[in-house]
Amino acid sequence: MLTLYYAPDTCSLASHIALEHAGAEYTAVRVDFASNEQRSDGYLRVNSKGRVPTLVTDRGPLTETPAILMYICQQFPEAGLAPLEDAFELAKVNEFNSYLCSTVHVAHAHRMRGYRWVDDPSAIAAMQKKVPQSVGECFALIEKEFLRGPWVMGERYTVCDMYLFTLAQWLELDGVDPARFPKVANHRERMARHPVVSRVVAAEVTG
Amino acid sequence: MLTLYYAPDTCSLASHIALEHAGAEYTAVRVDFASNEQRSDGYLRVNSKGRVPTLVTDRGPLTETPAILMYICQQFPEAGLAPLEDAFELAKVNEFNSYLCSTVHVAHAHRMRGYRWVDDPSAIAAMQKKVPQSVGECFALIEKEFLRGPWVMGERYTVCDMYLFTLAQWLELDGVDPARFPKVANHRERMARHPVVSRVVAAEVTG
Repeated sequence: MLTLYYAPDTCSLASHIALEHAGAEYTAVRVDFASNEQRSDGYLRVNSKGRVPTLVTDRGPLTETPAILMYICQQFPEAGLAPLEDAFELAKVNEFNSYLCSTVHVAHAHRMRGYRWVDDPSAIAAMQKKVPQSVGECFALIEKEFLRGPWVMGERYTVCDMYLFTLAQWLELDGVDPARFPKVANHRERMARHPVVSRVVAAEVTG
Repeated sequence: MLTLYYAPDTCSLASHIALEHAGAEYTAVRVDFASNEQRSDGYLRVNSKGRVPTLVTDRGPLTETPAILMYICQQFPEAGLAPLEDAFELAKVNEFNSYLCSTVHVAHAHRMRGYRWVDDPSAIAAMQKKVPQSVGECFALIEKEFLRGPWVMGERYTVCDMYLFTLAQWLELDGVDPARFPKVANHRERMARHPVVSRVVAAEVTG
């Protein structure tokens, strides 16, 4: 049995969608960021980083979106969520997910989580000012090169699509106009209409 | 045939060590950061992100350290550089590598690459001031929880060890005293003495 700890409007949405696509039996447990539950003693025992997502398995907890996504792909191979049979294509999946976690998500995080890297309030404000540019540059690369179309990996729908959809939710709040990136915007619309995706998004809002 | 584009004192060292451990046939090509070669037209055609490492394969280039490391593990399974036979343990490898790229390396990058996230020089200085704390907190978690001992994954030597060794090289320059983390410091010493590791380190210095 699997338990996903998630919070709405965070990157845990990607793992949530992947579990639903995989047809996994799982329980979704909401972590209340408003009361800072992610830093509570109880949650830190599950994930000492104090972040979401955490996927608790029979063998222990897993953290980090790229690792959780690949684990779901391997545990539910019949769902076909990654090209497990082709090491190069699988590396391209890992490359894309790694770029999202280490560059795109990090650029975004400078808007709301600047305190991770600086204490001075005026420096935090200076960081926020650059977010539209730094996030915009990431999505320009995604638009031009990484999103092969119609899906990230081309004809095959993979966990990359769920992760891209998740981070693309934040464009407007990051001060980036999605209309600059027609392929990304179209991808986001198609994802939002997918019954599995819309079911998970609705569950996170009400859950 | 494989070609690794690398630069000394960067995270490309992890992939370089992994290739050598795997017994791969490869050419190592040094990218000259001093002349900003990573932003040259020629290199941007290889890797549009303008960063190292890039591993060029017969099917095209791969970027992002976690993706390259996993690709090397899968292409050279006889080297045993990851627990490919166990999806949960493999997820723990991916989890560790993902933490290094998205949190540890990013904390470090605020010392030298602050311009990625801010323009104001005083904000860049404020960022640099916090690096000893933010990098120190990462290594405190690694020391306490993630480095099982004697290797990151326990008894098994994996690509996690090569990646941790690479980032642990930067502790002193990041203003973090390695003596605070005896397990990490001991791991770094053992890695530095390994004939394969020391051969690659020497090749990068002279190459």
